[in-house]
Amino acid sequence: MVNVFSVLEKVRRQQPLVHHLTNWVTIFDCAQIVKSFGGSPIMAHAPEEAADMSRLAGATVLNIGTLTVELVDAMKLAACAANEKGAPVVLDACGAGATKLRDEKCFELLDTAKINIIKGNASEVSRIAGENVRTKGVDAMKVEHDLVAMARSLAKRRACTVVVTGPEDIVSDGKTCYLVKNGHEMMSHLVGTGCMAASVIGAFAAVEPDLAAAAAAGLSCFEIAAELAVRGSRGPGSFRAKLFDCAFQLSRQQVESMQKVEVAE
Amino acid sequence: MVNVFSVLEKVRRQQPLVHHLTNWVTIFDCAQIVKSFGGSPIMAHAPEEAADMSRLAGATVLNIGTLTVELVDAMKLAACAANEKGAPVVLDACGAGATKLRDEKCFELLDTAKINIIKGNASEVSRIAGENVRTKGVDAMKVEHDLVAMARSLAKRRACTVVVTGPEDIVSDGKTCYLVKNGHEMMSHLVGTGCMAASVIGAFAAVEPDLAAAAAAGLSCFEIAAELAVRGSRGPGSFRAKLFDCAFQLSRQQVESMQKVEVAE
Amino acid sequence: MVNVFSVLEKVRRQQPLVHHLTNWVTIFDCAQIVKSFGGSPIMAHAPEEAADMSRLAGATVLNIGTLTVELVDAMKLAACAANEKGAPVVLDACGAGATKLRDEKCFELLDTAKINIIKGNASEVSRIAGENVRTKGVDAMKVEHDLVAMARSLAKRRACTVVVTGPEDIVSDGKTCYLVKNGHEMMSHLVGTGCMAASVIGAFAAVEPDLAAAAAAGLSCFEIAAELAVRGSRGPGSFRAKLFDCAFQLSRQQVESMQKVEVAE
Repeated sequence: MVNVFSVLEKVRRQQPLVHHLTNWVTIFDCAQIVKSFGGSPIMAHAPEEAADMSRLAGATVLNIGTLTVELVDAMKLAACAANEKGAPVVLDACGAGATKLRDEKCFELLDTAKINIIKGNASEVSRIAGENVRTKGVDAMKVEHDLVAMARSLAKRRACTVVVTGPEDIVSDGKTCYLVKNGHEMMSHLVGTGCMAASVIGAFAAVEPDLAAAAAAGLSCFEIAAELAVRGSRGPGSFRAKLFDCAFQLSRQQVESMQKVEVAE
Repeated sequence: MVNVFSVLEKVRRQQPLVHHLTNWVTIFDCAQIVKSFGGSPIMAHAPEEAADMSRLAGATVLNIGTLTVELVDAMKLAACAANEKGAPVVLDACGAGATKLRDEKCFELLDTAKINIIKGNASEVSRIAGENVRTKGVDAMKVEHDLVAMARSLAKRRACTVVVTGPEDIVSDGKTCYLVKNGHEMMSHLVGTGCMAASVIGAFAAVEPDLAAAAAAGLSCFEIAAELAVRGSRGPGSFRAKLFDCAFQLSRQQVESMQKVEVAE
Repeated sequence: MVNVFSVLEKVRRQQPLVHHLTNWVTIFDCAQIVKSFGGSPIMAHAPEEAADMSRLAGATVLNIGTLTVELVDAMKLAACAANEKGAPVVLDACGAGATKLRDEKCFELLDTAKINIIKGNASEVSRIAGENVRTKGVDAMKVEHDLVAMARSLAKRRACTVVVTGPEDIVSDGKTCYLVKNGHEMMSHLVGTGCMAASVIGAFAAVEPDLAAAAAAGLSCFEIAAELAVRGSRGPGSFRAKLFDCAFQLSRQQVESMQKVEVAE
């Protein structure tokens, strides 16, 4: 099994630099959640320095939430530089399925560089897996699929780790499949929880070479912080502030008593 | 009269997709206020997908707060696509009057696409109405005008709904004119309350075809949430968090007892 | 000595327009901290209006945190316009030393326009001073230098004011050197405290012609607000909200009893 807290401890000790080419809506939140867990966030999207920064970083996180053609070009440079270094690349397929541009650019990224971790909700990952699903904005839709099988199959085909977020998150590297059953419904009322999840996965993947274990540990820690943050929150505004506090304060005792990471059959 | 709460209920039930091409300062806050009221925010400014996203959306909100020539070009594509679909377009004339570029681009947008709702403070709307007023930054200046008459005249000339925000908001579609007397002085100390107001108007206009009624209802709900959020706030930081909480929690009882929407003479 | 509170009073009374060309991560926070202290923030990065806005503004703040070549070109236009007007220009050398692009663009800005205040942490300012130091992301590294001597020397050479932030901030205009000993370790856990410091310095420099005194007063007020905000905070999320509250509420009594501004030998 994954030793969730030990991965968090490594993040806190190593303070990995996590490079982001991300969206303009949640860019602060992505940086702050990485910092709250002990990592060092950096955001550098100029094509002239995106690769240089990925060479310095322990992980590179790509998020297409507010993509442009130019930004995706810079993502390719950053991802290829991370590949050369051997540092993991996370792709948050934010909004895949919503427009032709998003789909095309996702596949371009996947075909240009090695993406080590593909992360999205059920409809986004379905799209990347070649399933015909429509996304409504950035919110998850119910999809009538065997999501575990889809994740495993995509992970094998792309030789990567696949993360499908939802009430229960699925993490598969084609062999092992984890289910992360932490989290709270309030997360769906705060803008950016999906983006933050990808950033946290990046921070954990920077310190743990078993990427499926890293992703499962990161998701579990993030969602335990969310469960703790809901206590005493009166809505998404106070929840947001408490989420950063709880991630920052997260203790061994909290992680070990609250983590719900299982291996799927 | 406007049944304010019934429009809010429709937003919560229909969860309209509200597409934004907006500014980088308040982009999170615009998304979060829409989500807090029950809508689905999306931000997509690439020219290759701006129109596609507007075709999926119930309303499109344009905000020129940090405009560039390229961003305004994408706004035109998005607005024309919304026009074809028959979905409302809201323009927040953020900072109009401050520079030549802002004025030119406002008029280009107004002349290229049908803008269904023009929203600004007194000095911004005065500028669009052709009055000679100087804006200091994005804050309202005192203008010695009959603002109701100006709003009505501009609404008739442009065949649209005009919203002038201030201590008392004016909403006119050229026939009916509403005054919204909710709100609190603390709103002027938080960056982005004007931008959020435009986003809320977008969400409400997506579900209510009477656009003046939609705008008045949206402003009233937003400002009631602000009045509630001020209680227990110690400044703009805690006010911001509580504003999202109060929007999220807003009840029928609160709306019906606190709304101050009047029809102007 | 600097009369710290009297500079804050001038900001509150004059409400200076503070123009920013800044980064997308902390752009909201930069705007909100300026507004919380009583200034009027504006962000306008289009090359067609960047200079116009600097002509209206009391100070211009440049921050290269998420620079692009185009953004730096607009910064040059804005800085030159501010120079012509005689309004101060602040450069936050965010991340200098991390990549070749950042170094090149810092020096281009310094050589194209008059930068009145150069601000960074020890490693960033060392780089601009021509010292060979590596920056890890945007966080400060220990540097084994006499920082006061370095600041003084750079200030003389560039005929400007130099601000080196850290546990003790150094402010030198080549003649007078202030040490600002306010602040709290929690600031290092919140994304954007460095960027906000530069924005506050901009607001204070807009109203106080002695730029070293302005920078010292601004830093002291910002860091006193941080010390107050830590009380009752449980981590970076609640600290962020309280920071804006405490800046907004900051009283003469608090400033006068807590300020720690000294003149260095």
